[in-house]
Amino acid sequence: MFNKLCIIGVGLIGGSIAKTARLQNLATVIVGFGREDDVQNLQTARQIGVIDAYYLDIAVAVADADLVIIATPVASTADVLRLLQPYWSANTVYTDVGSTKGSVLAAAQAVFGQVPDNFVPAHPIAGAEQSGVLAAVDGLFANKRLIITPVETTDTEALRKIQRFWQGLGSAVSVMEATHHDQILAATSHLPHILAFALVDMLGHKDEQSEIFKYAAGGFKDFTRIASSDPGMWTAICEANKQEILPLIDQLQMELAKLHDLLAADDYSQLFATFAYAKTARQRFLEQFDKQQNQLQ
Amino acid sequence: MFNKLCIIGVGLIGGSIAKTARLQNLATVIVGFGREDDVQNLQTARQIGVIDAYYLDIAVAVADADLVIIATPVASTADVLRLLQPYWSANTVYTDVGSTKGSVLAAAQAVFGQVPDNFVPAHPIAGAEQSGVLAAVDGLFANKRLIITPVETTDTEALRKIQRFWQGLGSAVSVMEATHHDQILAATSHLPHILAFALVDMLGHKDEQSEIFKYAAGGFKDFTRIASSDPGMWTAICEANKQEILPLIDQLQMELAKLHDLLAADDYSQLFATFAYAKTARQRFLEQFDKQQNQLQ
Repeated sequence: MFNKLCIIGVGLIGGSIAKTARLQNLATVIVGFGREDDVQNLQTARQIGVIDAYYLDIAVAVADADLVIIATPVASTADVLRLLQPYWSANTVYTDVGSTKGSVLAAAQAVFGQVPDNFVPAHPIAGAEQSGVLAAVDGLFANKRLIITPVETTDTEALRKIQRFWQGLGSAVSVMEATHHDQILAATSHLPHILAFALVDMLGHKDEQSEIFKYAAGGFKDFTRIASSDPGMWTAICEANKQEILPLIDQLQMELAKLHDLLAADDYSQLFATFAYAKTARQRFLEQFDKQQNQLQ
Repeated sequence: MFNKLCIIGVGLIGGSIAKTARLQNLATVIVGFGREDDVQNLQTARQIGVIDAYYLDIAVAVADADLVIIATPVASTADVLRLLQPYWSANTVYTDVGSTKGSVLAAAQAVFGQVPDNFVPAHPIAGAEQSGVLAAVDGLFANKRLIITPVETTDTEALRKIQRFWQGLGSAVSVMEATHHDQILAATSHLPHILAFALVDMLGHKDEQSEIFKYAAGGFKDFTRIASSDPGMWTAICEANKQEILPLIDQLQMELAKLHDLLAADDYSQLFATFAYAKTARQRFLEQFDKQQNQLQ
């Protein structure tokens, strides 16, 4: 489908894109770009065949590429776009994988004055706690959702190409506005991560923490899994989506205050009603989740 | 080891005890007791061979039993003890599986004036979101922790028998004071459950909930798994351990307020430090968890 795919940042996500794109014949040549301090990772990526070559010179890396994917942490999108700007080509489609999309559009606007027509912001809703190319796997995006957040001026042909590319990687592609994406992800991903970090930080500061952890079981392990995510990446996501996240923290605090007060007041019928509502709501989520998995497979 | 084991309440926990006890030859005869409205479940339990017989008459059920296990929801412990009282025998060891232990001791004290010497309160740290005897599995307690919370007057021989019984079911047995148990479980189990219920309740009340759930991924599924737990059981646990849970909700509120304020103030270095601390703390938990699993296996 593409002749030369250039991946900026060959980590877990970039590496998994490369691996799957190669297996699915979505690109003839796949190259990587990184900075000096990323050389070891890039060498590994080439050695294990995830990429065909890597370059530390952006001009060489993107020369003749018809697809450029920015797969660096979301905080560095502006820097990467600034790096790409002198070599920006009308014959190339550009996309990214950032977890927040308003911040990515803002970065593009800041660098280019307006979002380039051939830049198609996208976000694969997939990931893991690990990072680096050795964590990359073929199939990371299979049966997962991918959201594209174009602007009014986005070239429809470029959008169509990114859509097909991700469908080729196995994803179910949705298109929506960036602000809408950021609202949804704040609720389903950013808030839960903050909650998990908050709980483990709080317990980890207790004098009896080693005993607490000693008697914690599988439920605790699952619940706190996302607290093992990369702190730098999540700080950047919080910064980028601050406006959506802050009111959600407020809402959750109100919810916790409600539960606290119900318990303090021995209002067990209301407490039961709240728990029962949550169980039913999660059941709705599970049914939708399973249905999607079946549809996507 | 025991001649006749009587299980009061043959659900997920009671049924799993029966299944494993039979396989491990820990009891010659295993019978169940339940109320009229539990007859269908008891019939199933007998049909699938989890128990040898069941009785709706407590006198018959516990006659000649040398081990009686109360495996009903924690809120009904007092009622069950009251039912057992006329037939209480010095030749029998009694135990329970309640998730909160202070409330169980209080129930025993209320019914008997003081905790009987041959009543050994215990709590297997294992479970699942399902309930009923059909969810029971052999091995539910293998490599899991079990906590015994005796009082000063608890008969050491009775304690030893319960300890050996649970070791026979595959558990790693610890002994500690009930108040200490309740503090630890409030942190590792009760608070996370409340948090999961709170998050899903909050999101489930949003107008855009179906879209939120549509784009929620595996991380959300894991994080909210415990929000599918039984609302009645968790209301009872909250009631029984209210004194330990309320201050923990307060502490978590303060922690969330801290994160909120750091983000609002753009203090990303402190936000990063908090996330990084949590990640490291969870790593300590994981290492301990894995070490235990290896030791127990």
